[in-house]
Amino acid sequence: MKRFLTVDDIGDLGQALKEAAEVKKAPYAWDTLGKNKTITLIFFNSSLRTRLSTQKAAMNLGMNVIVLDVNKDGWQLETEFGVVMDGDKPEHLREAVPVIGRYCDIIGVRSFASFEDKKADYEEEILNQFINFAGVPIISMESATRHPLQAFADLFTIEEYKNKERPKVVLTWAPHPRALPQAVPNSFVEWMKVADVDLVVTHPKGYELSSEFTDGVTVEYDQKKAFKDADFIYAKNWASYEQYGQILSQDKSWTVDEEKMLLTNDAKFMHCLPVRRNMIVTDGVIDSENSIVIDEAANRVVSAQVVIKRMLEALK
Amino acid sequence: MKRFLTVDDIGDLGQALKEAAEVKKAPYAWDTLGKNKTITLIFFNSSLRTRLSTQKAAMNLGMNVIVLDVNKDGWQLETEFGVVMDGDKPEHLREAVPVIGRYCDIIGVRSFASFEDKKADYEEEILNQFINFAGVPIISMESATRHPLQAFADLFTIEEYKNKERPKVVLTWAPHPRALPQAVPNSFVEWMKVADVDLVVTHPKGYELSSEFTDGVTVEYDQKKAFKDADFIYAKNWASYEQYGQILSQDKSWTVDEEKMLLTNDAKFMHCLPVRRNMIVTDGVIDSENSIVIDEAANRVVSAQVVIKRMLEALK
Amino acid sequence: MKRFLTVDDIGDLGQALKEAAEVKKAPYAWDTLGKNKTITLIFFNSSLRTRLSTQKAAMNLGMNVIVLDVNKDGWQLETEFGVVMDGDKPEHLREAVPVIGRYCDIIGVRSFASFEDKKADYEEEILNQFINFAGVPIISMESATRHPLQAFADLFTIEEYKNKERPKVVLTWAPHPRALPQAVPNSFVEWMKVADVDLVVTHPKGYELSSEFTDGVTVEYDQKKAFKDADFIYAKNWASYEQYGQILSQDKSWTVDEEKMLLTNDAKFMHCLPVRRNMIVTDGVIDSENSIVIDEAANRVVSAQVVIKRMLEALK
Repeated sequence: MKRFLTVDDIGDLGQALKEAAEVKKAPYAWDTLGKNKTITLIFFNSSLRTRLSTQKAAMNLGMNVIVLDVNKDGWQLETEFGVVMDGDKPEHLREAVPVIGRYCDIIGVRSFASFEDKKADYEEEILNQFINFAGVPIISMESATRHPLQAFADLFTIEEYKNKERPKVVLTWAPHPRALPQAVPNSFVEWMKVADVDLVVTHPKGYELSSEFTDGVTVEYDQKKAFKDADFIYAKNWASYEQYGQILSQDKSWTVDEEKMLLTNDAKFMHCLPVRRNMIVTDGVIDSENSIVIDEAANRVVSAQVVIKRMLEALK
Repeated sequence: MKRFLTVDDIGDLGQALKEAAEVKKAPYAWDTLGKNKTITLIFFNSSLRTRLSTQKAAMNLGMNVIVLDVNKDGWQLETEFGVVMDGDKPEHLREAVPVIGRYCDIIGVRSFASFEDKKADYEEEILNQFINFAGVPIISMESATRHPLQAFADLFTIEEYKNKERPKVVLTWAPHPRALPQAVPNSFVEWMKVADVDLVVTHPKGYELSSEFTDGVTVEYDQKKAFKDADFIYAKNWASYEQYGQILSQDKSWTVDEEKMLLTNDAKFMHCLPVRRNMIVTDGVIDSENSIVIDEAANRVVSAQVVIKRMLEALK
Repeated sequence: MKRFLTVDDIGDLGQALKEAAEVKKAPYAWDTLGKNKTITLIFFNSSLRTRLSTQKAAMNLGMNVIVLDVNKDGWQLETEFGVVMDGDKPEHLREAVPVIGRYCDIIGVRSFASFEDKKADYEEEILNQFINFAGVPIISMESATRHPLQAFADLFTIEEYKNKERPKVVLTWAPHPRALPQAVPNSFVEWMKVADVDLVVTHPKGYELSSEFTDGVTVEYDQKKAFKDADFIYAKNWASYEQYGQILSQDKSWTVDEEKMLLTNDAKFMHCLPVRRNMIVTDGVIDSENSIVIDEAANRVVSAQVVIKRMLEALK
């Protein structure tokens, strides 16, 4: 396993889920696998869950962990080729990436969509420079278009909580005061399409995700219809893809509340966190027994550990 | 041991001091106790000694350490319940705390008094949310009202240096250009009251600590009288408790100097550091042979290691 | 080995290079040497290569690593003696340094030239306070006047790539938009003078380095003459020493380009990184097969590991 960005990189989902269950049951069973191996976690954007869970996963495997907070360091990297570097940016990604690759065995990268250049974002310009130039395996810890460690943890959480063979899973847009990337919903759709679930996506008009992800997926513009008989409600805000990066609505009639949850099949409530209470979801729903957001977050260690474990095994 | 905030949490002081001496003598004797255990140190306020000494203590026990510098990350956490989160704060402590608890085995928290709300500070609102919601043992690395790792280290330092059964220990206020919390003097008084020492507190009028701490303690408003025959002089600035958070005096006649030290019984000079030279204490005193501030700081590893060791033993 | 600042601190270069080769061949052969030992890396100035490579080197030896980013913490330390500390600086280096020394076994310090006070810079005021007061071995991770881990890595890289007994090594100044310290060229000259190479330094008039370093070294003001038959071209910008800290020229005729490289004996191109492309060196040169900047950066782990290994051996 040389990179982890899309659902294809994980291969067979059934096998991945089986491995996730093993890792969760005995997290320290491979605690010498990473001996004298180092993972560097590079954050162009800050992080709580992703940093802690990925760091914990690597330590469970006996690895050394180096955290590099590019964001805080104000480390400005040039990414364009051919420019005269006489401005603010002291270093080119073309040197920085292979050098970091020489100091470790695996690199994790977090680099959000800029919302400045749709094409650059959707071509994953930053992440691909790491994939092309680092010389070591690369894990996306949320890139411009995807958040695969989250989607893998989400799928595993659904697997743990489902009480029927093929549950109905609803991804619902919900309002938020800031413009948020599409990475989480893109990956969620990408993984759920392959998984054995009945997926419905619901959002206001104008919030359609890229067809690269949603081709063949049921989109229902009436949120209440979508919720009917759902086994899992996955709430998330995202900014418009069409009018790239724009907030088209902050309509609170899309907030997930107790009344809407009554339409479901006693659905579990999921969210990747951090969550804006009483914007995305009411206190009543997130504090209810059906809310599994903390278990979902805890499973971020499991998904990261499976991915790092596979990469370490491939390094041997 | 599920939490470490007050002197009561450590139980019998004689036993704690005995354990501290063992840890100091052989710091690596328990270096597999923390294998595959992780401590997360969360700093809402920045730190030098506390971070390094607690990290070192955990590493001596073979633990993994994750440092989270909330202060620097500008991670704004909502702490109120029931609010619509449409402002600057992207995450509620109600999610953040249990999630962090799922990624580790022990949490250390530093969160100073805000000086904005006396009641909130003295009810330890932030720390108590960690105690209530984290699901793992919590260590105060200085909270709104107490700094127990410091007080434990102070007591152990006095134990090491005392040359009589029951030494006279004087806590003296001293001037400082900024408004400082009462956490250090509160904990110092709380621990010394239980310890086998003769405690006197001296400060200008208006600087009385909360009676919750000083009930039954001798307060002497004349600093020179207080210093007479003292075996230990513990200097510290704090802002007023009564006129909460206010600086009432910067009177340099309260600075600890060579002349006042002559009134003592060849007393040792102590301070928790960082110290403002020639405000709190003259160069002459802090650079003298009787100054034990560096040994005192070194003992912060010892107090932290005893506390973490006990928590690890209780996890087994 | 108690300190690592000058070339003298490493002793015999032949022996050091032999040890470097052994470390590179088997980096984990001493992975229990640092068991229960801690190195604290203190950055008054930010860092990529130095932090990652020194951290990796210490981890290869089984050490615990604590990184302290003073720069980011805005930790203002008083360095003057005798002052009344009633201003912005809450702590004196005189307490901070020995306290840090009590929490670890080795300290690495990065503290650049301020360019405010030539005498203070060239007397290494900050680094010397660490050497005098820390009580543990000190490694310069680039100080005001020297960058010895870089120079040692540079020498080892030349040793790996040279194809004659005594290669011609040219240090050339090149233009840059910012005023940069002389630490890298100073150390490079200091080490090359002792090494078995034919050293030539070339720069515009006014960019003479301190004679403390360049006494006895060939200086050639005509860059093209200097390049003739060179086996290694080492490019670097630095600000004027004479007109201390000033930029006297940004003349791009000094940029290292393909045409000039043709004058050499098929020379390898070196730079300590980060490098300003098309200011210091053209894309054509740095992207050519003769560019060994990434291997040079990778060797920073090797030089750091030799130094830390020697210090650990001396601690035993």
